[in-house]
Amino acid sequence: MATNPFDQQTPIPGVKKIIAVASGKGGVGKSTVAVNLALALREHGRVGLLDADIYGPSLPRMMGALNQKPEVSQGNKITPVSRYDVKVMSIGFLVEESAAIVWRGPMLFKAMDQFFRDVQWGELDYLVIDLPPGTGDVQLSLVQKVPVHSAVIVTTPQNISLIDAKKAIDMFERTSVKIAGIVENMSYMLNPANGEKIQLFPKGELDAYLDAKKLTKLTEVPFNPSVSLGSEAGVPIVESNSSGVEAQAFKALATKLK
Amino acid sequence: MATNPFDQQTPIPGVKKIIAVASGKGGVGKSTVAVNLALALREHGRVGLLDADIYGPSLPRMMGALNQKPEVSQGNKITPVSRYDVKVMSIGFLVEESAAIVWRGPMLFKAMDQFFRDVQWGELDYLVIDLPPGTGDVQLSLVQKVPVHSAVIVTTPQNISLIDAKKAIDMFERTSVKIAGIVENMSYMLNPANGEKIQLFPKGELDAYLDAKKLTKLTEVPFNPSVSLGSEAGVPIVESNSSGVEAQAFKALATKLK
Repeated sequence: MATNPFDQQTPIPGVKKIIAVASGKGGVGKSTVAVNLALALREHGRVGLLDADIYGPSLPRMMGALNQKPEVSQGNKITPVSRYDVKVMSIGFLVEESAAIVWRGPMLFKAMDQFFRDVQWGELDYLVIDLPPGTGDVQLSLVQKVPVHSAVIVTTPQNISLIDAKKAIDMFERTSVKIAGIVENMSYMLNPANGEKIQLFPKGELDAYLDAKKLTKLTEVPFNPSVSLGSEAGVPIVESNSSGVEAQAFKALATKLK
Repeated sequence: MATNPFDQQTPIPGVKKIIAVASGKGGVGKSTVAVNLALALREHGRVGLLDADIYGPSLPRMMGALNQKPEVSQGNKITPVSRYDVKVMSIGFLVEESAAIVWRGPMLFKAMDQFFRDVQWGELDYLVIDLPPGTGDVQLSLVQKVPVHSAVIVTTPQNISLIDAKKAIDMFERTSVKIAGIVENMSYMLNPANGEKIQLFPKGELDAYLDAKKLTKLTEVPFNPSVSLGSEAGVPIVESNSSGVEAQAFKALATKLK
């Protein structure tokens, strides 16, 4: 008899709401959304941020915590790194950022299991999980390990990105994870010379698809070089320019998810 | 005794030079580079284009061949689709673009093996292979199946992308595949209002890294919304605006790789 994968779901003690940030495709700004969502959620409660993107863990850099190490206590309990009043855990704290690790399934699950069980998150109102991009069995297993409250799918406007976002949505539907909605990232850019909109990536069929699926577009985040600069420098835009259009877009997202 | 993986390398009959296009991270424009490189190489010989990005096969769309099907002959030989005078093969011709397929290793290798063995490429001077993003064992195995002449690594300027590009470079070095060099994609954008450079993604340590590793930057491709638009519409920029700055950047790349 096949075992029900949900039998393995174990709540994380003290953690109220787990929000997964996912994308079908890499390079759409998933980690940037996860980081800025976590910071924006601080207005609504205590926040943790888990980097589950084992293939390219970029949260230590984006959170300005590149050389920090979580403390491990005698009972093998891990204390997450605290940064911008957010508790952060990432495989990037444990391995070299540039190492060409070929993670294999079992190793991966063991590491993630430890993150879920052995990290002392304490009392959290929100735990934001930055999933790896894509829709393979790795992603599937991750969302089956803990009770995810809802998933946020990040995409850019064009169809080539939407096609992969649809696959991510399919995956969550098949695993009965509630989809909170879509974040349209790099939605447009305001021309620094004259304030006019520049459509960096062409609008595709995203809105029509969302209508048909009765899914919500949670927010549109405009492209701004300062967002990428903030991710590089370890100062997320919600922290460095909290009144700007981009930070406001992330705050609107947090309000919808709170 | 461990078997030497290179024992399994089999040349593709009639194919002279195999060029792999790779990236450590998704969303950096790897497929766009592969497509436009293929079209630019037409000036130097007969060209084939193989979409090995099984997780997100976007070449049928980018090549304007979405609803085309390769013909399968009685001997189970597959005739590639011909488009823009380039012979194209993609898993995307065989499965629904939006299907949420979870490919597992063995299935994947079987499919790729068939692509290498059973596709009637005919006489080709160049076969451009669009690899999946990342550095897992899938990518490793692919480059070990056929004698790759050289690999082109695509990255965007910022460090978060460079970190993953380094992993791809490590992978090729470990498998003794020659690295032709780096393509810096979305290098900058020319402001449509005043022609000034906009640095969309901040310059990181790419140039210093290339110096230290004695690797070449083959070309810098500026960001232009028309490149993405061309990919969406199935008319690559090298075809639609062959005298523009972006097409010239791809042609310079082709000349270096010929």
